[in-house]
Amino acid sequence: MLVAHLPNVFYLSGFTGESGMLLVQGRRAVLFTDPRFRVQARQECSQQGIKIEIVRGPLPPVVGNCLRQAGSNGILLFEEDRLTVSQLRQLKRAGRAGMVWRGVCGTVEALREVKDSQEVARMRDAARLGSAVMTHAIRCVRPGMTELELAAEIEYQMRKLGASGPSFETIVASGPRGALPHGRPTAKRLKKRELVVLDLGVILRRYSSDLTRTVHIGRAPAAVRGWYQAVLLAQAEARQAVRAGVPAQEVDEAARRVLRREGLERYFVHSTGHGLGIEVHERPSLGRNQKTRLLAGSIVTIEPGVYLPGRGGIRIEDDVLVTETGSETLTDVSRELIEI
Amino acid sequence: MLVAHLPNVFYLSGFTGESGMLLVQGRRAVLFTDPRFRVQARQECSQQGIKIEIVRGPLPPVVGNCLRQAGSNGILLFEEDRLTVSQLRQLKRAGRAGMVWRGVCGTVEALREVKDSQEVARMRDAARLGSAVMTHAIRCVRPGMTELELAAEIEYQMRKLGASGPSFETIVASGPRGALPHGRPTAKRLKKRELVVLDLGVILRRYSSDLTRTVHIGRAPAAVRGWYQAVLLAQAEARQAVRAGVPAQEVDEAARRVLRREGLERYFVHSTGHGLGIEVHERPSLGRNQKTRLLAGSIVTIEPGVYLPGRGGIRIEDDVLVTETGSETLTDVSRELIEI
Repeated sequence: MLVAHLPNVFYLSGFTGESGMLLVQGRRAVLFTDPRFRVQARQECSQQGIKIEIVRGPLPPVVGNCLRQAGSNGILLFEEDRLTVSQLRQLKRAGRAGMVWRGVCGTVEALREVKDSQEVARMRDAARLGSAVMTHAIRCVRPGMTELELAAEIEYQMRKLGASGPSFETIVASGPRGALPHGRPTAKRLKKRELVVLDLGVILRRYSSDLTRTVHIGRAPAAVRGWYQAVLLAQAEARQAVRAGVPAQEVDEAARRVLRREGLERYFVHSTGHGLGIEVHERPSLGRNQKTRLLAGSIVTIEPGVYLPGRGGIRIEDDVLVTETGSETLTDVSRELIEI
Repeated sequence: MLVAHLPNVFYLSGFTGESGMLLVQGRRAVLFTDPRFRVQARQECSQQGIKIEIVRGPLPPVVGNCLRQAGSNGILLFEEDRLTVSQLRQLKRAGRAGMVWRGVCGTVEALREVKDSQEVARMRDAARLGSAVMTHAIRCVRPGMTELELAAEIEYQMRKLGASGPSFETIVASGPRGALPHGRPTAKRLKKRELVVLDLGVILRRYSSDLTRTVHIGRAPAAVRGWYQAVLLAQAEARQAVRAGVPAQEVDEAARRVLRREGLERYFVHSTGHGLGIEVHERPSLGRNQKTRLLAGSIVTIEPGVYLPGRGGIRIEDDVLVTETGSETLTDVSRELIEI
C-alpha cells in the first residue's frame, strides 16, 4: 500500500516532514522524501526499521520506478481520496504494466479513529492546554479590542503554555460576524451588547484540541439568553447520547431535537461534531445520515450552534472521549453564559 | 472548467471560505459551497454576478448533477493536480455520459504568476509588515529562551501589526537544529555560540510574505563568518540575476555557483526560491533544470542556504519583484551577520 496523506504517514512511521510518501509491503516500509528532510527522516524513522529514500523532484515517478525495480507485480493499494489524478498517472507510468492499482479510502484513517492509551494521554493534555487558553481568552475579552488582537493574544498564550501552535486558524467572530460559522478574525472591534464566538484549538505533541465558547459583552437580553440556553441544552443532550455502539446520527439528532423544539433548527447549519486526533477533522462525522457506530477510544467534538443572520452566533463545543459506558469530557471550561 | 483548488477559487471569485468549487462556463460562473459559508459567499461573490449553490454533503456529486441538468455535452476541464482520484470518479458518475473530462495543470496558477498593480501593492505591504516583524524578532533573540517562545513572540507581533496570521508555521531553528531546513520550533533553548535561523511570513489581505535571517548568539567564529559571507554573496548574485525573460535555472545557478566555489554546494539542499502570492509556494520554481522564463510582475523568494549536519544552518531570504529591467527587493532588513 502506498500512503500519501501526511497525517497517515506520520501515524504509521513517525515522520513529521512536509513532503513524504510511505510504501508498505508486508513488514517492510520505505519512506520517500526530499533532501530538506534527510536528517529529520533519519532521526524520526530509522529506529523503526523504515528504509529512507531521498528524492530530488516529484515523488511519484521515483516511487513508481522503485516498484518496477522491486518487480512488484501484484496489487498496489493507494488512497484514492488523497492522491491526485496526476499523481496516480505519474505512478502508473513509472510502475510496471502488470500491476493492479486499487483505490482505497479511509484505510489508515479507520486505524486512527480508535486512540491507544498513549494517544488518549496526549489528547487529554491537548484538551487541558486548550482549556487553559480558553480561560485566559475569556478573561482578555473587553469592548474596543479588535478580533485580530484577541486572536493574537490567544495564539500567543497557546505557545507560552507549550503548544506547538494552533490546530486551526483561531476564530474570533463578534456581533453579526458570529453568524459566519467559520469567521476569520478581522480588524472589527468588539462592542457592547454583542456575542463573541471564540473557537480555538492547540497542537501539543502532534495531537489536537478543539474548543468553543460564546460570551456576551454586557448583560444579555432575554432573546440571547433563550438561544444560549437552547444551545447549552442541545450540547448537553448530545454529550449524554455519546456511547460506544451508538450510531453517529443519534448524537447529532439529540442536539438537533432540542433546537428543533425551540424553532432554531434552521439556524443550525452544520453537523454536531467530528472526530479529533492528529488532524482536527477526522472520523467519525457526527452528522445527519451518519449510520457509522461510535467506537470506544474515539475522541469527538460536540459542538451544536445557532447562527442568526444579522444578529450573531452561539456555539458551545467540547472534546469527548467515547467509552464503553458513555463518555468523558476532556475539555474543562464553564459552559454557563458569561457576561463581560 | 471546474476549479477546485481554493486559492484558485479565491483568485477568480473572491470567495475565502474553506470549502468550495467554482464552475466557469463562458462568462457564467457558479460557486458551490456548504451551508457554513452561505452568508460569506453572498457577501464575497454575488456582486461579481457569480451564482451561489449551497450544498449539503460532498460537493462533487452535486457539481456533476448540475452539469448533467445543464445539458453540458462538451469538454470539461479539471485541475488534475488538485482533484483527487475519488473526486473525479464522483463527478464523472454524476455527470453526463457524453461529456469529455480533460485534466489540465496550472491553468489558473499561470494567471496568478503575474501580479496586477493591486496585487503588487498588497505584496509590498505584506513584505513591509514581514520586515517589521523580523526586525522585532531579531531584537527579541537572547540565550536561554526557547525556540517556541521566540516563535510565539513572532506570531503575536505579526497580528499586533495587523497581519491575519502567519503564511506558514514560523521556523526558529537554533544550533544543530538549524541543519533541518524546515525545523519546527521546539522547547530547545537558544544557547551562546549558536546560529539561529528565523524564517517567517505574514498574510496581509490574503497575500503572503516570506523572509529569513540567520543570527549568531555571541561572536561568530571564523568558519561561521566564512559560511555566512558565502551565503550572503550567493543571495546577492541570485538577486542580481533576476530579470524578466531570464530562465529560472539561471537564477538558481547564480547562487549555486558561489556556493560551489566555496565548496559548500553539497550543503545547499533545496532550490534558490519560489513564487509567492496568495500562496506561499507558487510558480515559478527557481531550481535546477527550470527552463521557464521569469515574467515581469512575478514575485519570487531568493533564499539560498547551507545546512551543516551537527553544526547548524545559514539561510538568507528576501522577496523580489521581477521587472523588465531587473528586480526590486520588497523585504527590507539588514543582511549583514548580526551577533547578539
